[in-house]
Amino acid sequence: MLKFAVDCSGADKGSAVVVNAIKSFLIQNKDVEIFAFGKAEELSELNGVCHIIDAKDVVPMEAGALEVMRMKNSSMMMAIDYMKNQGLDGVISAGSTGGFLSASTLILKTIPGVKRAALVAPFPTAIKGKKTVILDIGASNENSPEELVQFALMGSLYAKYVYGLANPNVYLLSNGTEEGKGSPTSKVAFKLLKENNFPGFKGNVEARYALSGDADVVVCDGFSGNVFLKSSEGIAKMMSNMMKKVFKKNLWTMLGYLHVKKGIKEMTETMDYKSTGGAMLLGVNGVVVKAHGSSDAYAFKCALDVAKKLAENNLAEKIKKGLENE
Amino acid sequence: MLKFAVDCSGADKGSAVVVNAIKSFLIQNKDVEIFAFGKAEELSELNGVCHIIDAKDVVPMEAGALEVMRMKNSSMMMAIDYMKNQGLDGVISAGSTGGFLSASTLILKTIPGVKRAALVAPFPTAIKGKKTVILDIGASNENSPEELVQFALMGSLYAKYVYGLANPNVYLLSNGTEEGKGSPTSKVAFKLLKENNFPGFKGNVEARYALSGDADVVVCDGFSGNVFLKSSEGIAKMMSNMMKKVFKKNLWTMLGYLHVKKGIKEMTETMDYKSTGGAMLLGVNGVVVKAHGSSDAYAFKCALDVAKKLAENNLAEKIKKGLENE
Repeated sequence: MLKFAVDCSGADKGSAVVVNAIKSFLIQNKDVEIFAFGKAEELSELNGVCHIIDAKDVVPMEAGALEVMRMKNSSMMMAIDYMKNQGLDGVISAGSTGGFLSASTLILKTIPGVKRAALVAPFPTAIKGKKTVILDIGASNENSPEELVQFALMGSLYAKYVYGLANPNVYLLSNGTEEGKGSPTSKVAFKLLKENNFPGFKGNVEARYALSGDADVVVCDGFSGNVFLKSSEGIAKMMSNMMKKVFKKNLWTMLGYLHVKKGIKEMTETMDYKSTGGAMLLGVNGVVVKAHGSSDAYAFKCALDVAKKLAENNLAEKIKKGLENE
Repeated sequence: MLKFAVDCSGADKGSAVVVNAIKSFLIQNKDVEIFAFGKAEELSELNGVCHIIDAKDVVPMEAGALEVMRMKNSSMMMAIDYMKNQGLDGVISAGSTGGFLSASTLILKTIPGVKRAALVAPFPTAIKGKKTVILDIGASNENSPEELVQFALMGSLYAKYVYGLANPNVYLLSNGTEEGKGSPTSKVAFKLLKENNFPGFKGNVEARYALSGDADVVVCDGFSGNVFLKSSEGIAKMMSNMMKKVFKKNLWTMLGYLHVKKGIKEMTETMDYKSTGGAMLLGVNGVVVKAHGSSDAYAFKCALDVAKKLAENNLAEKIKKGLENE
């Protein structure tokens, strides 16, 4: 039976969304045991549904590693500690990204052989239903070429076991497609991947085409990856706001909206980061899923679904074996 | 009288778009002299309109610095050489970005005191009519903290003289807003800008909010800047393609389109990179404007307009003075 620790505080919209997510997740997954950490009075609806562990403190959204490590009575720290000490399969939180990633890495430790953990997220692409896995999108702010090579392996295993791709292709995010293009780090990583005949390595991809749907896995350093993630989100948000204004203008435009409503809804779903379940920290011992801070119950439930998939496939073990075979 | 050298070959859509751009630019600007470089037989419409200099070769789109420098009879190299030797005010091209930027830097040389030239572009923002100036978007693939500080100065002067902002604010592109966030390079740049009380320095901005309309100038290293530029373009393109599909679905959705046509047109105009006139290389002696490879006549004409504005304001001289006052 799979067992997860869930940090119920820390989501922007409050613990109620996490409570609802756990409830709907457990209806579909009778074989999973959940340990919910948060203010007991806010979790009363989970009585009889799962284990409740009272945690008085909430980690502030902007908390860094040191601050979180000191907050021993916070729902986030208690959840991570409990997962580690009780040997649970994973931990899920919508709280402070920096705090959660650092604390998870410090407490759970990286898998033997892994130089650096990486934050990975599946992105929507121009091809309906197709996701592209991009890493690192922000666990580090600097990476070595050797770390990028490991990210290629971890991303590849993720695409294989979470998306069922037999032979995922792998690209390096770069400022041009030619072999000589790239940052000093990515250029060396290119050389290493090529020399090692890394399975599925296809060379460089420009940010413009990273989401065209051709790439299964895109590897980058954590700083550029974070820029990629956030600029994509920013532009998508900006354009959908503009579109809303267009339709809200007057009665005729609102009538116009009725005709395209279904299409727009499909488009919004394609661009929706919620259904991807947030971001996963790869390379640590166990499953660590960071749900979006702005998660609603649906998004947090998707995060639980992904955690289950990662645990079922025992991705951490596969990464360990993959590194041994290098 | 301002004098510009124009590379008429190299645009994806052929020299005709450049010819038309020059014609419409010169109708509005009788006080500017243009030297057009390209295959004479393709430039016959410019007879009597401006100077025509026959250039047999065309630099291939993917050409790098070395290749371009060797192509002495190409329209691009001849235009840059002519600008330098005849003391013209600027050079404009829609050809190979890498080739044009490297050749311009090598031939025109950086302004005394400038460590590295930077490619700058104005981006559309969520606020109608407001542009945000971002640099470097790809002249380098690596930068030092001191170079980022110089970019802050050059970007600030650009915003002042091209957009008429008296006191432009300046942000560093980062993976978080707090002072401790950033790449190793941007963190040191933050410290330097803060210690120097750099006018208008406001700290870090995340890629998500870089185009919210708050920032006048956003400074980043060339690799991240290129990722930012191209992911923004990629998502904008992907979303407008999706939108087109939505409207083209059937008669009713096409009818719906009629009602929102005007609004969508306005939105497309806001997101249109053409009207910004491409990208400008700051920090070299003279005006260097790189029009989009995919420019049509309108876009290339905008590039000529920006070149004129930069030359009129003598931005290179202002950067030189600004650096002396540091």
